[in-house]
Amino acid sequence: MTAQKDSEPLKVALLGCGVVGTQVARILLEHRDELAARVGAPLELAGIAVRDVTVPRDAVIPTQLLTTDAESLVDDVDIVIEVMGGIEPARTLILRGIAAGASVITANKALLAQDGPAIFEAADAAGVDVAFEAAVAGAIPIIRPIRDSLAGDKINRVLGIVNGTTNYVLDQMTKHGLGFEQAVKDAQALGYAEADPTADVEGHDAAAKAAILASLAFHTRVSLDQVACEGITKVTADDVAWAKRSGHVIKLLAICEQNDEGVGVRVHPALVPDTHPLATVSDAFNAVFVEAANAGPLMFYGQGAGGAPTASAVMGDVVSSARNRVAGARGAGESNYANLPVVDFGTASTRYQVRLSVADKPGVLARIAEVFASNGVSIETVTQAPRDDRDGSAYLVIATHEGREAALAQTIETVAQLDVIEEVMSVLRVEGS
Amino acid sequence: MTAQKDSEPLKVALLGCGVVGTQVARILLEHRDELAARVGAPLELAGIAVRDVTVPRDAVIPTQLLTTDAESLVDDVDIVIEVMGGIEPARTLILRGIAAGASVITANKALLAQDGPAIFEAADAAGVDVAFEAAVAGAIPIIRPIRDSLAGDKINRVLGIVNGTTNYVLDQMTKHGLGFEQAVKDAQALGYAEADPTADVEGHDAAAKAAILASLAFHTRVSLDQVACEGITKVTADDVAWAKRSGHVIKLLAICEQNDEGVGVRVHPALVPDTHPLATVSDAFNAVFVEAANAGPLMFYGQGAGGAPTASAVMGDVVSSARNRVAGARGAGESNYANLPVVDFGTASTRYQVRLSVADKPGVLARIAEVFASNGVSIETVTQAPRDDRDGSAYLVIATHEGREAALAQTIETVAQLDVIEEVMSVLRVEGS
Repeated sequence: MTAQKDSEPLKVALLGCGVVGTQVARILLEHRDELAARVGAPLELAGIAVRDVTVPRDAVIPTQLLTTDAESLVDDVDIVIEVMGGIEPARTLILRGIAAGASVITANKALLAQDGPAIFEAADAAGVDVAFEAAVAGAIPIIRPIRDSLAGDKINRVLGIVNGTTNYVLDQMTKHGLGFEQAVKDAQALGYAEADPTADVEGHDAAAKAAILASLAFHTRVSLDQVACEGITKVTADDVAWAKRSGHVIKLLAICEQNDEGVGVRVHPALVPDTHPLATVSDAFNAVFVEAANAGPLMFYGQGAGGAPTASAVMGDVVSSARNRVAGARGAGESNYANLPVVDFGTASTRYQVRLSVADKPGVLARIAEVFASNGVSIETVTQAPRDDRDGSAYLVIATHEGREAALAQTIETVAQLDVIEEVMSVLRVEGS
Repeated sequence: MTAQKDSEPLKVALLGCGVVGTQVARILLEHRDELAARVGAPLELAGIAVRDVTVPRDAVIPTQLLTTDAESLVDDVDIVIEVMGGIEPARTLILRGIAAGASVITANKALLAQDGPAIFEAADAAGVDVAFEAAVAGAIPIIRPIRDSLAGDKINRVLGIVNGTTNYVLDQMTKHGLGFEQAVKDAQALGYAEADPTADVEGHDAAAKAAILASLAFHTRVSLDQVACEGITKVTADDVAWAKRSGHVIKLLAICEQNDEGVGVRVHPALVPDTHPLATVSDAFNAVFVEAANAGPLMFYGQGAGGAPTASAVMGDVVSSARNRVAGARGAGESNYANLPVVDFGTASTRYQVRLSVADKPGVLARIAEVFASNGVSIETVTQAPRDDRDGSAYLVIATHEGREAALAQTIETVAQLDVIEEVMSVLRVEGS
């Protein structure tokens, strides 16, 4: 394709002018010529909808483009870029833009995880594109590879480090032996964690992304409330140190998998073997590991947040959607033909590594092993270590073979009630091995 | 998009029935329903062109589909899948298919690196898709992410481990201290290297892939003869050991970069810091590391060869092209609008790590340093170590700052002629730091 700048300009509305929006505007304005050559038509930034036009902004933002009238803006453009976040007014504006015939690019994972189907149905009815590469794992191309590159394969499993804040926190705990609270404070001081880190550390942000990934990977609608979710707030410095001893690191994983019963989606901290590609993902980086029937293992790695990285993903979608409009075509829409059941967490196949504080006397292991056996849970290894800080006590670290989550959880509940058990110090799942 | 199986079937011709072709046929036949749901129309395998229909084949191949008449086959289909390899008759058949209105999917890196432009121009003229995800890095989605996901960004550099054979050989040398010859023999025994490993170990295979990646990344045609290429045949067990001492591993890299002068493309062994994501890519795996202006660093990792992995990439392209045909649309064609000059290797910015065997006496370093200085090459570190195997000799390991390749090469040539130099043991470039 040779550059075609003679086509009519495509009008672009930008909703939101925060960290991401500012970078999107900068790219649109500073790279007009390259973008026009790549699209086959100029992209014209028609307006930037904000709540308050008087707020001081980056010098790159032309103030005459700012408007508080988002409704009028989306009524008269070819492409709507939504980077304002939150459910409303984002949802209403997106649906309004679609109804007016615009293609929509959004980075809004919360909205998609909650109301994706309504948006996709509206886009199908209007024959426009809805693209959302930036909603999962920031700059990393993962939506398009799953939807298009792997469209001829069968995805079995997706393991994602999709929240940079928690990866930074866990990585600092791993590298420097910090406790959870201290690591969060450090992350806040460096801008890697919000003042209220709940959405990140409780796994809610990762869960929204997991719902989006699972929907794509398995051609089945998965909503946020179907994702089992456990955050990293209970992970201790001790857990991290014990993980190291057994050749693991602790990562918060978004896990999407398909088995005979259906699709399972969960977010929780997990022990990942040192040798697994995900184990090397440090700092606030993200990575998505995909296991496909034919491709085998794949990993996609990069920055999961930040203005410019997220804007890169947004702009890739803008160029693709704009190319489609120039060609009078449409990209792949939602695919939900498989419509598989979404199964409970209890049916998941997992492996546990459990650390118990026990009375250091004969027969203890036998009694514990009996509980495992009676629940049908098979033990892979047992490691005993004296507890230096408490006379007459020992640590018992038990790694299980694979079993059903429900059976494993039940086993631990029963074990905890044995009189020889002083404390269940930690229960962590092992993934990626 | 709900599944639409009511559209007319799309006829598919498969050219070649080797390791990859067999897997492509298997997927087409075993996953008809899923593929139909994803495409919106059934994919009908119309025929498989082979040289000899009597050769015994995998049971999955329906013998009635085999034909030696490839010409007639490509004249009457919607999609041509070319996995026969080699320049002819692949080139003629692809052009014939395009002329007849078929979209083409090919895994043929050698053909694309040599005759890509002719094929892309024919496809543009005919308004059909040419897709080639499988031509670079096997199963790894990298063509589509560069072409589409990063279409709104500016790629500065691509560093790729794109040849599994050489990565396996170098990894075995690193892990087990093997020499090059032994590692190649082991790789041959395990099927990771061909009986004649020249195309791999001399870097020719990687060079073809580098030309394709550079063309895409920089919107500029780059042909195979513009790629500077050096293989791994001179890498010794000693080099690998010394690399370890300085915190590096040796990888064969395909490097595509843009600077003020134009586009540079090269393939050579390089020292990669242990901490770089590419350093962890072991065995026969491939990975492509992309540095983009806004996205920052990205890495794509997976299997670079093999029947099923390559077939996964082929089938992703088949589904996408088929979707386009159902929609009456076309994917992004070749983009060469930037048309940048392709510059000589001598203009590249590189860093050297040089290991010299020198006379162990005062004043030697001063004389060597003088040569570096007079060529404008700045030294970063010098490490001296006694040579255990030779009295009166020492090793001198010199790491330079960044400089122009031509100046660095000239420096080493001059240094080699100094009488205090016994031998230039190795010259390796340092990348990724």
